[in-house]
Amino acid sequence: MTEINHQILLVSRPEGEVEAANFKLVETPLAPLQDGEVRVRNHFLSLDPYMRGRMNESKSYASPQPLNEVMIGATVGRVVESKNTRYQVGDKVAGFFGWQEFGTSDGSALRKLDDTHIPLSAYLGVVGMPGVTAWYGLNRIIVPKAGETLAVSAASGAVGGVVGQLAKAKGCRVIGIAGGADKCRYVVEELGFDACIDYKQDNLHDDLKAAAPKGVDGYFENVGGPVLDAMLARMNAFGRIALCGMIAGYNGQPMPLKSPQLLLVSRLKLEGFIVSEHMEVWPEALAELGGLVAQKRLKYRESVAEGLASAPEAFMGLLKGRNFGKQIVKLV
Amino acid sequence: MTEINHQILLVSRPEGEVEAANFKLVETPLAPLQDGEVRVRNHFLSLDPYMRGRMNESKSYASPQPLNEVMIGATVGRVVESKNTRYQVGDKVAGFFGWQEFGTSDGSALRKLDDTHIPLSAYLGVVGMPGVTAWYGLNRIIVPKAGETLAVSAASGAVGGVVGQLAKAKGCRVIGIAGGADKCRYVVEELGFDACIDYKQDNLHDDLKAAAPKGVDGYFENVGGPVLDAMLARMNAFGRIALCGMIAGYNGQPMPLKSPQLLLVSRLKLEGFIVSEHMEVWPEALAELGGLVAQKRLKYRESVAEGLASAPEAFMGLLKGRNFGKQIVKLV
Repeated sequence: MTEINHQILLVSRPEGEVEAANFKLVETPLAPLQDGEVRVRNHFLSLDPYMRGRMNESKSYASPQPLNEVMIGATVGRVVESKNTRYQVGDKVAGFFGWQEFGTSDGSALRKLDDTHIPLSAYLGVVGMPGVTAWYGLNRIIVPKAGETLAVSAASGAVGGVVGQLAKAKGCRVIGIAGGADKCRYVVEELGFDACIDYKQDNLHDDLKAAAPKGVDGYFENVGGPVLDAMLARMNAFGRIALCGMIAGYNGQPMPLKSPQLLLVSRLKLEGFIVSEHMEVWPEALAELGGLVAQKRLKYRESVAEGLASAPEAFMGLLKGRNFGKQIVKLV
Repeated sequence: MTEINHQILLVSRPEGEVEAANFKLVETPLAPLQDGEVRVRNHFLSLDPYMRGRMNESKSYASPQPLNEVMIGATVGRVVESKNTRYQVGDKVAGFFGWQEFGTSDGSALRKLDDTHIPLSAYLGVVGMPGVTAWYGLNRIIVPKAGETLAVSAASGAVGGVVGQLAKAKGCRVIGIAGGADKCRYVVEELGFDACIDYKQDNLHDDLKAAAPKGVDGYFENVGGPVLDAMLARMNAFGRIALCGMIAGYNGQPMPLKSPQLLLVSRLKLEGFIVSEHMEVWPEALAELGGLVAQKRLKYRESVAEGLASAPEAFMGLLKGRNFGKQIVKLV
């Protein structure tokens, strides 16, 4: 019996917003395993904002997702067949198999995972790329000091939630920005932020002034657009901005920065970064994050879409902020 | 006989462009010197873009220039009377006496100058604040490596000319941006830049592509506006931008940055700075710059306005780029 693999391909590039028609769900028979290969049943697929950039053909920091190929993405799963001595059936592994149910690998890009104290799906979030992203921007760019005020946008998201909790542990006053009362309540009551601003209330400038009366010393940016405009006006002298994402402009609409002169007036330092270019920090960051999760000192939330076929819709929701916490797709 | 001091006061704040009516030339009798005081006849007054910011009431990095007081500014001159044992008549000194012919001081904010090998006026330019500004932005923010491409705007100006020459000495390919064919010719032929783009030709994007075929690794920004937009699009991954001035917006007109997402896409590092906040580098920088000037290995050019009364006109010209090199006013 040949097993069937379900896969989702990118079949056209979005013009503006992503549409369901950009994707195609296909069935592909699994080829027999070759010597040295490992077959993984993916349990969870990670959906992340960076994927939107890869869907474009235009210049970005990475080569575009090719058309008519399986959409890229990080996955975690279980080895179901192995002709590779380093992997046994039953091993839990992280891979980068993309939007599909099964992955086949020569074993080189896999990483074994221990899910005794850390749920498998967390390796796609707080103990994975989003967590390390938070760790890097905070510890290598912002470098917050106790007593400083730190702000983070998309605060209830996979990255933002970690940024704020790590900063709280360092003795900062932490302000979140999120979309909607539910997310803001979660950010303050569950994650322990000092305040959270609902950007949908359209009162960013005054809300920020109230939440950060002494100004903002460090800002972790995930969204760009009007939020960044408002934040720049509130930054203290010598503030640091870690530029991690600008999801507000991912569909290609113009997103000018209103008052770039504030970067000079307040002598700010701003740095754009991509965590995959800083692999040297991953071991340290993952060890710290994994420890915190295992000790339940780092909280997180997941939005779980059920089944591969739900991935396009979930991804479109993520780009519109409809997710609540780390967006994943449960494949088994 | 009581000597008369001529002074220029700021009597109103500009709305938009600076006008002659914002200033007033007055005659003030010099008070007799008190014990411990020094009287300096100012020989040269420095005019610098930062003064425009001080003329506004709005938030900037420094307190505004008070109305009906002598306009601030750096000066160099000669001690003409002294009741302070640390200064003798004939000593050459740098001070911050502002737009006036004589300065009186308790000696605390003066610095003795040696004009044997370095012309007195150079202490207002290449061997003064503008020179150290160039040195700091280049060596502490951009940190260029041999073989990299560096660009600098206002390239024929007091700061830009030093930036480019120091970068050339470090083995960089250096691109200037300046206004007009004369300035560009000077930048290439006299200062030794590899290329210079005339932004008045309105072809920044293509000209920059031609001048920097491998992209730009370091950018020293003095102007902002469309030049910064064009430069961002040409920056290489991991490029560094020293944000020193944004003269294009000093009259308060909106000056949005078109595509801030390029800061993320190209993982740029941008830092705004004010050299007076980094006094720790001044001794090292001034020693290096003074040595280069004395050895005639660092070239510069001055625009000299004659007499105190010419200062307002010269300052308005500076803000419009009518100066060619460091703008000073000769007072004696």
